[in-house]
Amino acid sequence: MRCQKCRSEASLEIRRHHAAFCATHFLDFFERQVERAVETGKMFTREDRVLVVVSGGKDSLALWDVLCRLGYQTTGLYINLGIGQYSEESQQKAAAYARSLGAPLLIADIPGEFGMGVEQFASATGRASCSACGLSKRYLFNRVALDHGFSVVATGHNLDDEAAVLLGNLLHWQTAYLARQAPVLPSTHPRLVKKVKPLYRIAEREAAAYAVIRGIDYIVEECPNSVGAKSLLYKEALNLLEQAAPGTKQSLYWGFLERGLPLIRGEDDPVLRACQYCEQPTTAEVCAFCRMTERAADRMRIRRCHEQSLSVARSSGEANRARSSNPVPPHAAATHGDLPL
Amino acid sequence: MRCQKCRSEASLEIRRHHAAFCATHFLDFFERQVERAVETGKMFTREDRVLVVVSGGKDSLALWDVLCRLGYQTTGLYINLGIGQYSEESQQKAAAYARSLGAPLLIADIPGEFGMGVEQFASATGRASCSACGLSKRYLFNRVALDHGFSVVATGHNLDDEAAVLLGNLLHWQTAYLARQAPVLPSTHPRLVKKVKPLYRIAEREAAAYAVIRGIDYIVEECPNSVGAKSLLYKEALNLLEQAAPGTKQSLYWGFLERGLPLIRGEDDPVLRACQYCEQPTTAEVCAFCRMTERAADRMRIRRCHEQSLSVARSSGEANRARSSNPVPPHAAATHGDLPL
Repeated sequence: MRCQKCRSEASLEIRRHHAAFCATHFLDFFERQVERAVETGKMFTREDRVLVVVSGGKDSLALWDVLCRLGYQTTGLYINLGIGQYSEESQQKAAAYARSLGAPLLIADIPGEFGMGVEQFASATGRASCSACGLSKRYLFNRVALDHGFSVVATGHNLDDEAAVLLGNLLHWQTAYLARQAPVLPSTHPRLVKKVKPLYRIAEREAAAYAVIRGIDYIVEECPNSVGAKSLLYKEALNLLEQAAPGTKQSLYWGFLERGLPLIRGEDDPVLRACQYCEQPTTAEVCAFCRMTERAADRMRIRRCHEQSLSVARSSGEANRARSSNPVPPHAAATHGDLPL
Repeated sequence: MRCQKCRSEASLEIRRHHAAFCATHFLDFFERQVERAVETGKMFTREDRVLVVVSGGKDSLALWDVLCRLGYQTTGLYINLGIGQYSEESQQKAAAYARSLGAPLLIADIPGEFGMGVEQFASATGRASCSACGLSKRYLFNRVALDHGFSVVATGHNLDDEAAVLLGNLLHWQTAYLARQAPVLPSTHPRLVKKVKPLYRIAEREAAAYAVIRGIDYIVEECPNSVGAKSLLYKEALNLLEQAAPGTKQSLYWGFLERGLPLIRGEDDPVLRACQYCEQPTTAEVCAFCRMTERAADRMRIRRCHEQSLSVARSSGEANRARSSNPVPPHAAATHGDLPL
């Protein structure tokens, strides 16, 4: 198999484009696809300051890398979700990459700020882990962007991610979610920053290939909470279809953007107002993130009281032993202060 | 596992309904689901004469059986598609079942009428086999229903069939097809008979279970042309999803009917006129079926001329040998006469 540009040995076949490239021309292809996404979607220009949300994984680091090379003004944002060892390692990868790039990186530290991580948010409120995590990330990158004057936030969602989310929304005909699934979500409120996905034309394996060829050191492990996640199941089904008919994912997602979304997007945007706690835009009195953290903090307080009353009921020696084996976490008091950036 | 009605040993678990039934109560469940589909969809009443298209397979024979038991006035229609041994065997199954039921069965014989089967239609016109077959069946059951005064045609498409077709249409965002995918397609022209799918609430394995419990002798083999068909690939992907989350197919298809279809069905119905050859309704001057059979007949005539001119060029002895080893099929002259019913 030969590179369609220079006829040297091809490194990567891209079946849905009936194309194959050597490493050098694959990088060109990748850059062109991202630039095309940015330009045709009017995502941002070289005058905009773009906040790139980086997880330490291949997609977001590849995105940051390519945007820098294309001459856009970028700043990274790493959100520490408090998922044990996984968060520590991914933060190290993001920080090391930022240093090698010589680009600024902001850190939003959820455990440091809220006294617990997204897994505790989830278990305290009965949400699925991925739901609590997604809500936290969306909330935080919007807030950080506002606080630091960024006009646009870019995330590393690729074609496989978008196709899988779309399939899930179609399997349950979640029309409200379908209406908002696009690579460009404009700002519909002064405190809601524009969100863009410049990798929506890029398949997952292409993002991985880009990261490998560029020598980007990314975290290979999936998030431990993603085991059994529906999104992985949807990707498996789509991979089966893509294998038999290359281009299926692209056809599903791009066809949706061209022909499905205009049919679904009939309804007006919901009316947004300021959350009474944090002033972030919300459709309710209190935003979903504040409701979640408030409930999680309440649960933590109740647990602490329960543990204290258990201690009182026991002999002082027993109570001391119980306390030392089940210590109340030092971060149990949740606050709504500013993010430590 | 126990039957949820009588607590005896269950024969079949229906995970998407969180239910399990013994054989007797499964048959009740099956009948209720079909009756509910017929009544809520206003498909037909006990006063209507219903033409049931039967292929000799489990779904269509189960449909015919259950409609008879529910007291509807039914007549079967078997369409011989000219697919060799497969068509012969499936016709025998349909005819034997009709005799056991004591119900009338009409036969539409494509090779007998058009001089060739659907595979020849396909190869002569460059269509995929399944496309030529589907077009032929839709054309013929409408025409037979009109000629014999039926007000409605019922086919045995089940939930798995409909979900797979829907998935295929979504993967390519074929909005024109999506707008017409419903269990009830009303008559939109005096010569277009209403079409209904009373098994749309029934999964494929439930139709098979019904046929087995009722002792219906159906053809088990799939059509030989279905090997590699996209519909089977879509079913495989949906089975993967259903296995992990029972109810996925139902959620996809029913959700589409409730929330997707109303969004997509914005456009007006196309203007129909009479085909200049057969007077069946069409959006063009000549309907797709007549165009296909005309092209196939032309190809057959050209082939015959070619064979004859080859014969003339050879010595008379060679020509005779050539003719006897490659005989022109006796049915090569296609006609557009009435169906032999």
